[in-house]
Amino acid sequence: MGGRALVQWEQNRDNAPASLEVDLYAGGPAPTRGLDGVTFYQVPYAPSTQGVDESTDVIARMPNLEVVQLVSAGYEQVLPLLPDHVTLCNGRGLHDASTAEHTLALLLAAQRDLPRWAVDQRDHRWGTVPQRSLADCRVLIVGYGSIGAAIERRLLPFETTVTRVASRARPEEDVHGVEGLHELLPDADAVVLVTPLTEATRGLFGAREFALLADDALVVNVGRGPVLDTGALLAQNGRVRAALDVTDPEPLPADHPLWEAPGVYITPHVAGGAASFYPRARAFMDAQLTRWAAGEPLANVVRTGR
Amino acid sequence: MGGRALVQWEQNRDNAPASLEVDLYAGGPAPTRGLDGVTFYQVPYAPSTQGVDESTDVIARMPNLEVVQLVSAGYEQVLPLLPDHVTLCNGRGLHDASTAEHTLALLLAAQRDLPRWAVDQRDHRWGTVPQRSLADCRVLIVGYGSIGAAIERRLLPFETTVTRVASRARPEEDVHGVEGLHELLPDADAVVLVTPLTEATRGLFGAREFALLADDALVVNVGRGPVLDTGALLAQNGRVRAALDVTDPEPLPADHPLWEAPGVYITPHVAGGAASFYPRARAFMDAQLTRWAAGEPLANVVRTGR
Ligand SMILES: NC(=O)c1ccc[n+]([C@@H]2O[C@H](COP(=O)([O-])OP(=O)(O)OC[C@H]3O[C@@H](n4cnc5c(N)ncnc54)[C@H](OP(=O)(O)O)[C@@H]3O)[C@@H](O)[C@H]2O)c1
Ligand SMILES: NC(=O)c1ccc[n+]([C@@H]2O[C@H](COP(=O)([O-])OP(=O)(O)OC[C@H]3O[C@@H](n4cnc5c(N)ncnc54)[C@H](OP(=O)(O)O)[C@@H]3O)[C@@H](O)[C@H]2O)c1
Repeated sequence: MGGRALVQWEQNRDNAPASLEVDLYAGGPAPTRGLDGVTFYQVPYAPSTQGVDESTDVIARMPNLEVVQLVSAGYEQVLPLLPDHVTLCNGRGLHDASTAEHTLALLLAAQRDLPRWAVDQRDHRWGTVPQRSLADCRVLIVGYGSIGAAIERRLLPFETTVTRVASRARPEEDVHGVEGLHELLPDADAVVLVTPLTEATRGLFGAREFALLADDALVVNVGRGPVLDTGALLAQNGRVRAALDVTDPEPLPADHPLWEAPGVYITPHVAGGAASFYPRARAFMDAQLTRWAAGEPLANVVRTGR
Repeated sequence: MGGRALVQWEQNRDNAPASLEVDLYAGGPAPTRGLDGVTFYQVPYAPSTQGVDESTDVIARMPNLEVVQLVSAGYEQVLPLLPDHVTLCNGRGLHDASTAEHTLALLLAAQRDLPRWAVDQRDHRWGTVPQRSLADCRVLIVGYGSIGAAIERRLLPFETTVTRVASRARPEEDVHGVEGLHELLPDADAVVLVTPLTEATRGLFGAREFALLADDALVVNVGRGPVLDTGALLAQNGRVRAALDVTDPEPLPADHPLWEAPGVYITPHVAGGAASFYPRARAFMDAQLTRWAAGEPLANVVRTGR
């Protein structure tokens, strides 16, 4: 608890307790000097690369490292790079506002025909069609974690009914286990997928699940592309609708049939990284560095170094 | 309180108290017989015509009419057709869920670039740009009435700040009077216009008001087109953005420059009439007919017959 911290944002350097030496590294070519002394490393946030690059490879050149801090929720990609003694913290919660509001944007876009109006505007066409509502929809949130709860808070004032699903049932919180999913699907007007990608969630939503949905139901995926089976969605041919911020494959190649699939609306993996992420991430980092300097327990520990 | 009621929906006929005789008229050619006995007339809802047609002209052929019931909020168009002794009730509240959710859809569409993604999808293009947020926005609701309050309820969980403006200040409810609008505009990230069209609101938002807004601020109009000065918006040339469900003129002709104005997103007056309106309207009508049959005070009286 002490030594040298390497962080991304000037605000965090400027606000850090005096006992900490703090330097900046915002991504790109890694620093070549001073890595020996780094004990706390915040991996710079790069919204476009979801993976491993120079900013994570540099971990191998930090012999005195004690903490790696990510500001993303996903951390699977970093685990193989970490020596056993290093503690890993993630950015759980920092993307909640951004991802949840984009989820509502997708739900509303699908229910209120926003893609149609955008294309009509380009064609200078004024014409209406009967409108669905978000109000009165029964929405199933599959992945009732940090973001799932943020989605629910935003959904309820729209006069919707929300049903919560997670990997295991938590009856005291009215959360269903995923083993009950098939029973719940026939009564859903909309299903929101917001789970991490794991062996258990890959292909979680496929032909069997689509078949259980009512005609004209809506599936929204803001989790990870491969959680939803693209082929099974294409086979729906508009019977069930979808709004996808994540796809499989991703990015979607220009000649992929999903672009033209009836009732499918696509945004290019933009849910999590909107403007509101940054002030939340910087405020979290201020507090985390203060905890670190004071020797207090860190927040968002996903793996404790041994 | 009794006699014959003419209403639009079978549910209301079927649920009406036995003491009432209820017939159906759902619009189109007006009934030619039995108009003498009509004491309660619900003007059929026609989302496309916002005006006067055979369904309102028929009022002149109902000599024993006591109540005219609209299921729209606006009623100005009907007033000139009403004999003094007829009471007028409107549909205040019935469009709140539909209009408020469309307002959120417009706010989110503008902040999260939904029109761009729709056009990119049509062109099979996957590419991102930095995203604004709705979170952290300071939103001014100009017209804090029934729909304005419904918009606020939906906005607050998005981690926004809402400021309320109505025609007159109500300090005990934290509502500002419209005379304070100019002072409030410089601090707004988004302004929602949701007033009726009156002599006081025509042109309410013009060159002077746009000039007081910060660069990149957003104006959403879900009230009536002429409340916003179209020429003044065009003159912004993208400095301030807009999302409009109502326009002036309306419908917008194919050659109008507003279609191509930078930063302007248009939907064709679809906010109020989505699917959720219908169950709310039918439930209201059930309750209203029950009140009428029992001689109880009616709800939503906007003019009492003398
Ligand atoms: N589109 C974007 O831009 C974007 C942005 C941020 C995040 N995301 C995605 O969103 C995911 C969720 O983030 P978060 O912060 O909310 O994570 P979180 O708090 O860990 O919540 C994840 C939830 O998923 C549930 N879950 C895991 N496996 C499941 C299964 N097999 N079936 C059903 N539910 C399962 C978990 O259940 P338990 O509660 O039982 O553990 C938990 O409720 C991230 O992992 C990431 O993939 C996407
Ligand atoms: N786009 C659509 O499809 C759609 C659908 C439904 C309704 N609408 C429009 O929305 C309007 C509002 O409906 P509502 O049911 O909310 O009506 P409402 O409950 O009567 O509320 C109207 C609000 O506007 C305020 N207002 C009136 N004149 C004003 C002025 N000069 N400056 C500032 N505020 C002013 C009123 O102020 P006070 O509180 O001081 O009286 C009131 O707060 C309708 O009249 C209609 O034009 C549009």
